[in-house]
Amino acid sequence: MTGTPTETAPVRIALGVEYDGARFHGFETQRDTRTVQGVLEHALSRVADQPIRVVCAGRTDSGVHALAQVVHFDTTAARSARSWVLGCNSHLDKDVSALWACEVDEGFHARFSAVSRSYRYMILNRTSRPALLNARASWICQPLDAVRMQEAAQQLVGEHDFSAYRAAGCQARSSVRIVRRLEVWRDGEFVHIDVTANAFLQHMVRNLAGVLIAIGDGRRAVGWAGEVLASRDRRTGGVTAPPHGLYLSEVEYPPHFQIPRLSSQFAVW
Amino acid sequence: MTGTPTETAPVRIALGVEYDGARFHGFETQRDTRTVQGVLEHALSRVADQPIRVVCAGRTDSGVHALAQVVHFDTTAARSARSWVLGCNSHLDKDVSALWACEVDEGFHARFSAVSRSYRYMILNRTSRPALLNARASWICQPLDAVRMQEAAQQLVGEHDFSAYRAAGCQARSSVRIVRRLEVWRDGEFVHIDVTANAFLQHMVRNLAGVLIAIGDGRRAVGWAGEVLASRDRRTGGVTAPPHGLYLSEVEYPPHFQIPRLSSQFAVW
Repeated sequence: MTGTPTETAPVRIALGVEYDGARFHGFETQRDTRTVQGVLEHALSRVADQPIRVVCAGRTDSGVHALAQVVHFDTTAARSARSWVLGCNSHLDKDVSALWACEVDEGFHARFSAVSRSYRYMILNRTSRPALLNARASWICQPLDAVRMQEAAQQLVGEHDFSAYRAAGCQARSSVRIVRRLEVWRDGEFVHIDVTANAFLQHMVRNLAGVLIAIGDGRRAVGWAGEVLASRDRRTGGVTAPPHGLYLSEVEYPPHFQIPRLSSQFAVW
Repeated sequence: MTGTPTETAPVRIALGVEYDGARFHGFETQRDTRTVQGVLEHALSRVADQPIRVVCAGRTDSGVHALAQVVHFDTTAARSARSWVLGCNSHLDKDVSALWACEVDEGFHARFSAVSRSYRYMILNRTSRPALLNARASWICQPLDAVRMQEAAQQLVGEHDFSAYRAAGCQARSSVRIVRRLEVWRDGEFVHIDVTANAFLQHMVRNLAGVLIAIGDGRRAVGWAGEVLASRDRRTGGVTAPPHGLYLSEVEYPPHFQIPRLSSQFAVW
């Protein structure tokens, strides 16, 4: 793979990526830490035999997982889609995996072309401490009322100023986001929070989860989610829920880019 | 917990245990390796403030997981059920967890009182390499025909001499076991093998899985599972499937022992 490379005119490649966030300091490259971007760029540069820089759809925090991250990169190395996937995986540790690759139009941008991102926040709601899911779900032993949480969540659907749900250090210029869907539902011992928005502010899903959990366990009234929203003040909100319950589950692009969609993405848990 | 202990007449305690087998060298204590028995006995001895030895229902191999292992131990330390669970967990790493505890009749024995054990062998059947489930499921990229596997599996149900499905080093005196249920079924990208028997020989589930996988991917005919069984010769069988797809999912006891049953054990994946 890293022998004499075949060169071509620059092409743009999109790549689907799954990872277990537990041992990563988030997606984005930071000096001296293990990041998803760092290991991906290292692996792809080996396959391409030239330096590769990737751009991602959603910069996940430390500890956050992805079932369906999308990145793009430009290269003059000519490799088949299969070679990008298999070559990349041969240089990656087992907690991160390339799922698919495809050549895309130069107008495609993993971040700016995305029309929506979806996340799942997964709560294991039982009295006993989890062993198998200790870094894969957020454990809450107090009983949660998912119906109350779902009712509260509907106050956040739509276009709003989410200042009260963004991290103090969030760099985004605008705090307005469009939440298209926010569903809270129980499946046995699990409570899932599924949220789709055009884009998210820093820690937005984890802050939403923190507020909904405080409503679900009875500490707060159902109307509190909307009151926090209306305050536009982060200090009125709840605690930021821990990262290890969070999964980037889907990124949607306009159909003409023909980006693969995973068939049964939630089957990984 | 480890202050002045309260002593009592000896009692027998049963304990439910969940663990992620990835970082354990199996259940049973071996010198200089990290085993589930070793960490449990260490934790329980701290709680009891006296040496505790545990006996388990099913000795799982290195890498094998448990949703519902059952152990028992005898002690003169008087602790509430809640104290055994919380105290034990406070001395355990995050990949193993006590789920419940209860005082049992002295006639109860975690191994000898069990009337059946159930295991699930979980296969992720897709082309792309898993990241999130890399040590939690067996990855097979060739398409598997779960209907063929299920048909083949029925040849193994019932009371048989499973010599051809036991490990070469298996110490059991008799190789006859009663397989009460063996079901192979597809759920999206997963193929599950669920098996219940009175007891299992060493590597028996992984050897069953190896044979059924060779039938499912078309290398062998449906009748092969029965031919291997009839041969009573391990050398005629398939490869031993890897341990990380295997979960001890249930141990059943006579109802009069009142051992807790987990409500939604399979929800952990």
